[in-house]
Amino acid sequence: MLVLITYDVSTQDGAGKRRLRKVAKECVNYGQRVQNSVFECILDASQALLLKDKLLSIIDETQDSLRFYNLGNNYETKVEHYGAKESYKAEGVLMV
Amino acid sequence: MLVLITYDVSTQDGAGKRRLRKVAKECVNYGQRVQNSVFECILDASQALLLKDKLLSIIDETQDSLRFYNLGNNYETKVEHYGAKESYKAEGVLMV
Repeated sequence: MLVLITYDVSTQDGAGKRRLRKVAKECVNYGQRVQNSVFECILDASQALLLKDKLLSIIDETQDSLRFYNLGNNYETKVEHYGAKESYKAEGVLMV
Repeated sequence: MLVLITYDVSTQDGAGKRRLRKVAKECVNYGQRVQNSVFECILDASQALLLKDKLLSIIDETQDSLRFYNLGNNYETKVEHYGAKESYKAEGVLMV
């Protein structure tokens, strides 16, 4: 199934910047970064649970926001992209 | 149907900052901002087409990225959120 992961991590301090990098690094192990804070991951149920636990252990739930969208198995027709495709380094630095 | 809209707009110049504000302002007319560059919009097919045309007329497809995810009508069980809910002003300024 395709699971879309979107996140907002507060980067007002060093700890937040580290959390942001860690979230991106974890997601890269499971899927494709499609936008700055958006990952598309093809996961089975157990992988989804594992990744969710890892990400929840990284973020600060009082400051950060983490969203999961389950698009199921037949997702090809549910996703549309327009515009440029950025290439990303896992550390969250946008290469332009 | 629930349509998720995610975008990355290049804000390296004034024009990009204006595009970012316009995209957010347009999306606010159709739905709920859930993260910095993520909107959840409840749309019928014609509204979806209309909004898509408007957003495509705003972004610069050589620099910006715009993604649509159709989660259908039975979306409640497909969406999970963890962490803080930021409140946003339509102009794209994150109020923290």
